[in-house]
Amino acid sequence: MPLPVPVPPEGVDPAWLPSAAFRAIGGRRTLIRGSGPLVETVHGEVADACARFGGRVVRDAEPGAPSYDLVLELTGTDDTEAFTYEREGGSTTVTASGQAGLLYGFFHVVRFGEDAFTGERPQEVHRPALALRMLDHWDNVAMHPVMGQVERGYAGGSLFWRDGRARGDLERVRAYGRLLAACGINAVAVNNVNVHETEAHLLTDRIGEVAEIAGALRPYGIRTHLSVSFAAPMVLGGLDTADPLDASVRAWWAETTRRVYEEIEDFGGYVVKADSEGRPGPFAYGRSHADGANTLAAALAPYGGTVHWRAFVYNHRQDWRDRSTDRARAAYDHFVPLDGRFASNAVLQVKHGPMDFQVREPVSPLIGAMPRTRLAVEMQATQEYTGQQRHVCWLGPMWSEVLRFRPDGEASVGELAGGLVAVSNVGDDPFWTGHPLAQANLYTFGRLAWQPDADPDGVLDEWIRLTFGTGPAAGLHAVLDGSWRTYEKYTAPLGVGFMVQPGHHYGPSVDGYEYSPWGTYHFADRDGVGVDRSCSTGTGYAGQYAKPWAELYESPDTCPDELLLFFHHVSYGHMLKSGKTVIQHIYDTHFEGVAEVEEAREVWASLAGLVDPARHARVAERFEEQLRSAREWRDQVNSYFFRKSGVPDAYRRTIY
Amino acid sequence: MPLPVPVPPEGVDPAWLPSAAFRAIGGRRTLIRGSGPLVETVHGEVADACARFGGRVVRDAEPGAPSYDLVLELTGTDDTEAFTYEREGGSTTVTASGQAGLLYGFFHVVRFGEDAFTGERPQEVHRPALALRMLDHWDNVAMHPVMGQVERGYAGGSLFWRDGRARGDLERVRAYGRLLAACGINAVAVNNVNVHETEAHLLTDRIGEVAEIAGALRPYGIRTHLSVSFAAPMVLGGLDTADPLDASVRAWWAETTRRVYEEIEDFGGYVVKADSEGRPGPFAYGRSHADGANTLAAALAPYGGTVHWRAFVYNHRQDWRDRSTDRARAAYDHFVPLDGRFASNAVLQVKHGPMDFQVREPVSPLIGAMPRTRLAVEMQATQEYTGQQRHVCWLGPMWSEVLRFRPDGEASVGELAGGLVAVSNVGDDPFWTGHPLAQANLYTFGRLAWQPDADPDGVLDEWIRLTFGTGPAAGLHAVLDGSWRTYEKYTAPLGVGFMVQPGHHYGPSVDGYEYSPWGTYHFADRDGVGVDRSCSTGTGYAGQYAKPWAELYESPDTCPDELLLFFHHVSYGHMLKSGKTVIQHIYDTHFEGVAEVEEAREVWASLAGLVDPARHARVAERFEEQLRSAREWRDQVNSYFFRKSGVPDAYRRTIY
Repeated sequence: MPLPVPVPPEGVDPAWLPSAAFRAIGGRRTLIRGSGPLVETVHGEVADACARFGGRVVRDAEPGAPSYDLVLELTGTDDTEAFTYEREGGSTTVTASGQAGLLYGFFHVVRFGEDAFTGERPQEVHRPALALRMLDHWDNVAMHPVMGQVERGYAGGSLFWRDGRARGDLERVRAYGRLLAACGINAVAVNNVNVHETEAHLLTDRIGEVAEIAGALRPYGIRTHLSVSFAAPMVLGGLDTADPLDASVRAWWAETTRRVYEEIEDFGGYVVKADSEGRPGPFAYGRSHADGANTLAAALAPYGGTVHWRAFVYNHRQDWRDRSTDRARAAYDHFVPLDGRFASNAVLQVKHGPMDFQVREPVSPLIGAMPRTRLAVEMQATQEYTGQQRHVCWLGPMWSEVLRFRPDGEASVGELAGGLVAVSNVGDDPFWTGHPLAQANLYTFGRLAWQPDADPDGVLDEWIRLTFGTGPAAGLHAVLDGSWRTYEKYTAPLGVGFMVQPGHHYGPSVDGYEYSPWGTYHFADRDGVGVDRSCSTGTGYAGQYAKPWAELYESPDTCPDELLLFFHHVSYGHMLKSGKTVIQHIYDTHFEGVAEVEEAREVWASLAGLVDPARHARVAERFEEQLRSAREWRDQVNSYFFRKSGVPDAYRRTIY
Repeated sequence: MPLPVPVPPEGVDPAWLPSAAFRAIGGRRTLIRGSGPLVETVHGEVADACARFGGRVVRDAEPGAPSYDLVLELTGTDDTEAFTYEREGGSTTVTASGQAGLLYGFFHVVRFGEDAFTGERPQEVHRPALALRMLDHWDNVAMHPVMGQVERGYAGGSLFWRDGRARGDLERVRAYGRLLAACGINAVAVNNVNVHETEAHLLTDRIGEVAEIAGALRPYGIRTHLSVSFAAPMVLGGLDTADPLDASVRAWWAETTRRVYEEIEDFGGYVVKADSEGRPGPFAYGRSHADGANTLAAALAPYGGTVHWRAFVYNHRQDWRDRSTDRARAAYDHFVPLDGRFASNAVLQVKHGPMDFQVREPVSPLIGAMPRTRLAVEMQATQEYTGQQRHVCWLGPMWSEVLRFRPDGEASVGELAGGLVAVSNVGDDPFWTGHPLAQANLYTFGRLAWQPDADPDGVLDEWIRLTFGTGPAAGLHAVLDGSWRTYEKYTAPLGVGFMVQPGHHYGPSVDGYEYSPWGTYHFADRDGVGVDRSCSTGTGYAGQYAKPWAELYESPDTCPDELLLFFHHVSYGHMLKSGKTVIQHIYDTHFEGVAEVEEAREVWASLAGLVDPARHARVAERFEEQLRSAREWRDQVNSYFFRKSGVPDAYRRTIY
């Protein structure tokens, strides 16, 4: 029986799967061969398209049947996600030896649109570069008094949880799974890594609610994961310890996990934030993070599950007076000594930069430094530090830079990583992501996870074409393409980071984190600014990189401009490679950044007739706020550095 | 029937009315003459003391009765609060022509202790300098999501409200009224001036709860007031306007007020925060604040009630880039043109300084500038900006300075004010005020409201003697006496104010309000710091004062050091009258301030055997936090100004 396509509630944006995206398939004759639940999903998709556009779909046609425009054929029963694609003799064929591959092949055809049915095309094999392509939802079940329903969420409430439990109507979750499958994502963690009291129970007495969600996501090839508390054996199990080497603790995890798999046969595994920002962890028992992760891994191993152990471990109660501690060093210092000690089904989940999702950071030196450990790289689709979905900030180019970075000059991050994870930017907002253009980040993430060396510009155009059609494509490309660099220009300069309002992280506060315990400083004084992380005179962080990068970052003469203040404290008169002084660079980029927002807003206004009115209005409204905020950033940052440096702007523009 | 003395719940601190304070009276023979409810209160007090200490009390003894040690005699039925006190021929006599006077006279005898019963003393007349001596409680009925139960409260929950309604057991409220009467306070507003949705209803359908509280406070001579929303006719009355000149609005207030007095015959009146920090007000209808106040005053007039109209009106959405707007000017600019237009039962309630209860501000120029308007001066006993009852900061000297200030060189503030109001620092904490030593602020406020030219040091000693007895008196005096100046030393320097963490206002953030919309700036740059409020080159605020002060404040050469940065922007090298440069003053005071806290902590430690252990422990614990916080203030402020100025400390102490 073909599975009906999910119908999200009235008014929910179709995102990159509008009806028009299925026009090409929907008008054709399609043959589907094979059986299995995901084949039924594909059948349902094609049937739905045909119902709308007059085509036809049949299953397992007998020999001698007429020829078909499209053949989707499952040839085996393995669990590969690969598929082949070819067009020959007027017919397009997708074959896959696993059901998920057939689903991805189907969406490949959708993305091609009319082009999938013209000309010839020799056989191509498509397979994801990364087996794990995951979204972590920082969703709370119970409303958190400070963080709300979704921690760092800017798109309304949670897709999964409402009024303290799993949403009854899961049609929207099914529609979400469909969108994810269409861009290549195959795993979702359904709750916040900060596991609070209510959420802890999802693992045991409330696992049924997780199973409901898993059931809704499964038909689109998505496995469900759960964030769990390291203290669960105490909090839930009534034990008096959570020591990972304690036999009763290990037994508790084993038994608890067995019950999870009773409810969710294809359960993906656990996500754990331990000994991090106040969460419990193995340090309390004098155990290592490998000990901690391996206990959970052992419980999951019999069922093929994985533990994702986050490497975001640092001292968040640092004394700002103490210049010898460097938060950037923390993940490397904590984890590199453990290389080789993690179980094979334990994945160390590493943020892409050493700090916390700033608009510009170097790539974490941990990546590439643990060859005997499975690593997943964590990105942040939710725009905590990049405009909170009130600003347009398409992160494709940043992620692509990270994925193409070669830690030792050879293999790229995309090749070294075993998985790619993003913190989701999705909520129950009608546009899914609050800012409609933030959908591009979700889509781009999925596509880069499938193919890390993909050209992000091409992915962007693909997203635009699917979502908006061709009419406004040039304007949309102009608005999005440079938006990350624009955002960088009007916010914290030259990689220094963290000039945000404490707590909520929206809007400027140059000194907001300067005297805080969070390890995030810029050390600006009347002479200069930046953090000396060199080996010769600084914290030694630069030395955590392999040679080519360690040498490059060590000296302000060779350090790339965009990371200069991350690695070095320099005078305001320091000459950048660009030929500008640091202070003039600050002034110039801040004026430019605002001008670019003004320009983008104009471009957007010009698209009024070419874009759905509701989408247009929402984006136009957000542009007003972005512009206000960008001006605030410009004026605060410029005033701050003018007051400190006393250096006038070369062009005598207004600085307050 | 004598009224029983209230018995607060077990474990509640007796504050300045411990059993020992009644020993002198309780061992004597007392005669009470007269009748009325407050006479019964006095009788209950004396009887309670006698029951504990073996004395005797009789009522209205017939001629020929034996002589008495103490005679408390009501001679009339008027509502004066004055009393006479004399001691002659071995007998002490208090007479009063009003019941409240007899109550105050009784507590006068309590304060005197054994001295009230020795020697001779010619007749003295005591009468309060100010008729209105009031505490405003910023208590919410419904827990506010950000501000909690008590806005700016640092002493637990509300004394009056719990679980969304008036507390059932009012014994603690009675005990509170008793403490207040003993220091001279005669009015209490029972809810937050920011009147939220739930609290609005206290005026109408929930007035019964206010009546319960009023009933508990009445026996100690305290009238109850209510904060009301200016929008009440719309919010509660269903009208489509709150225009104060609209006939239906006036009728609504008249009828509503009539009903209030049906429930609370001696109701004190309304407190209104209008057109202030987002509260509704007359501006919405193009009406003046006099129009607004007079409409409520007219409703209250038939019953002898008063409206307290707060003058805290300013633009809280200022653009920090705009240097022409000066929040300090706002109250004067708004209200002086209205002088003479307020009804006789309208009181304009003016904060003592032009900003918001900073540790150092000049006296508001509004005081003395509205000779045809009744003014009440508002202080803040709750230590919002002065350590939040985690720091010892006895505010007596500051309040005394304000009250002795002579706006035009002649009458003092204490003489010009019609009333004195403090935002209460009390909650349901066992010590009433969180920090046990913060009780001194409440007591001192009451005594200064009674006698504004009283020597605050004498009041402090009186409080110490009553509360702690004589044993630890010298140590306590040392800890408290200079604590306000100590706090000033380690926080924002030279009157500049507002270097606090935004929102909660605890702890340092030098730039925390520098780029905010709140109108609170210091304009520090690499060359200097301070706000130019002169007439010649600044905002003109200095010109709002009468001549002697306007001239004094106008020039940095004559402006007192402690207010220099409030009135002038000067270079770091500017020489103070103290002979120090501004920058060296900043360094020195910050090191001194911390040293003084360390010293006070030592003194406190030395009192261990002399003070009740629970009190001692609570204060000792708070001293740890005060010291930590003071060091944080010292280091952040010193680092900030060192980084900006580049001037090294003359004594080469550690600056980070």
